[in-house]
Amino acid sequence: MGEGSSREAYPRSRLYVEAALAAAARVELDRDQSHYLLRVMRLDQGAEVALFNGRDGEWTARIVETGKRGCMVEVERLRRRQSPPSDLWLLFAPVKRQPLDWMVQKATELGVGVLQPIMTQRTVVDRVNLARLRSIAIEAAEQSERLDLPELREPERLSKALESWPHERRLALCDETGRGTPVADAFAGAARGPWGLLLGPEGGFAPAELDALRDLAFVTPVGLGPRVLRAETAAVAVLAVWQAMLGDWSEAPPRRDGE
Amino acid sequence: MGEGSSREAYPRSRLYVEAALAAAARVELDRDQSHYLLRVMRLDQGAEVALFNGRDGEWTARIVETGKRGCMVEVERLRRRQSPPSDLWLLFAPVKRQPLDWMVQKATELGVGVLQPIMTQRTVVDRVNLARLRSIAIEAAEQSERLDLPELREPERLSKALESWPHERRLALCDETGRGTPVADAFAGAARGPWGLLLGPEGGFAPAELDALRDLAFVTPVGLGPRVLRAETAAVAVLAVWQAMLGDWSEAPPRRDGE
Repeated sequence: MGEGSSREAYPRSRLYVEAALAAAARVELDRDQSHYLLRVMRLDQGAEVALFNGRDGEWTARIVETGKRGCMVEVERLRRRQSPPSDLWLLFAPVKRQPLDWMVQKATELGVGVLQPIMTQRTVVDRVNLARLRSIAIEAAEQSERLDLPELREPERLSKALESWPHERRLALCDETGRGTPVADAFAGAARGPWGLLLGPEGGFAPAELDALRDLAFVTPVGLGPRVLRAETAAVAVLAVWQAMLGDWSEAPPRRDGE
Repeated sequence: MGEGSSREAYPRSRLYVEAALAAAARVELDRDQSHYLLRVMRLDQGAEVALFNGRDGEWTARIVETGKRGCMVEVERLRRRQSPPSDLWLLFAPVKRQPLDWMVQKATELGVGVLQPIMTQRTVVDRVNLARLRSIAIEAAEQSERLDLPELREPERLSKALESWPHERRLALCDETGRGTPVADAFAGAARGPWGLLLGPEGGFAPAELDALRDLAFVTPVGLGPRVLRAETAAVAVLAVWQAMLGDWSEAPPRRDGE
């Protein structure tokens, strides 16, 4: 993406690694990562890639060894300083596999800080495969040029999440019964600060859950318009509106047309 | 979705039909629609459904005949008056099938008025299967409780779309080079009125296309934050921000807890 340039192109292969990143460090890439670089992106020894680990910023690195089991890269220079992720939590009732995968992918592209599955009365899907969702989040973080991964938490009952809720964090309840404040009005009047966004299951929250939520001082019921939205649509929509109005969409992307 | 009620439940089966809708009119449903009602939703003769056609509002109707080839419903009463669709056009370079289907589904849920595929210099996908996209839009309109379908136009070259552009309609160029105004700032300062939202192909607009676009008085380059967004993510995101700030998200949904 971005404009072409006659100068050295921004390395288009970015990988998330766990290893510490510093000049001259050597990082061993695993089999999948090596396959991606050598077979999919068709890079050779000497080619430049970009690495990030959520802590040390983004660094360029050069492939120095390739073998059957993997490959080795040598870290060269800092390209982008680490910046903190958006202090934004998305709480969502798990949905079926494909929409859930889309939701995690797009939430990652949109810069979400924490993904918290919650179990509600009407939640249909019990289990969440966190390993699979983590892979999806890693790939989306790599492709969206994020400097970190969203934190993927274990599913938790809604009541427990609310009991332990940090009160300085506001919680936007995506309220499909229509009694919420239009979301742009709710956000326009809000001070910047940490937020959570809460989406219910396909069947909606149970009446008792809604009553309990509306009673909490840190909860703001918000409306997402007159149409019924699928869970993953609502997730992407409310994340985008939050980032645009209260988050980091006031920031421009890093330059992508060379340095 | 929505709260349960001891009163007559809102009919959960909604169908888009072409036929005129008025009290006592009889409408013949096609094979797919009949299969949906009788086999999927397991409705019988006498059951109530909701119909809309984009012109006459939403009406209740009752199944009066069922047979092997289809079924017949009799229209009863007006439930919701017709309201105009959002005066919002989405112009997008076609992408691969699955993300394109997703984009059309979610754009429909988000109330888009017109879907206009555009061909740019770097568009990879040449053809668009409008019949398939129409089916997706119909299903999404039915499920999202829209009163109409988005208009799906034939693909057009970007240059031609711009030559024939109605100048009172503003066009937001989703500018991934980072030179756009943050989208919330662009929309906050805008008068309500008709808009188009323009998304480029996966490879971005060509430099000459961007120069030409930025020269046009009706174009507003907007930024969608510091991360790279897939085309379908950007589409849903910018549609949501527009609807929240300039569109119909100031409206509450129709009551869903009985009448």
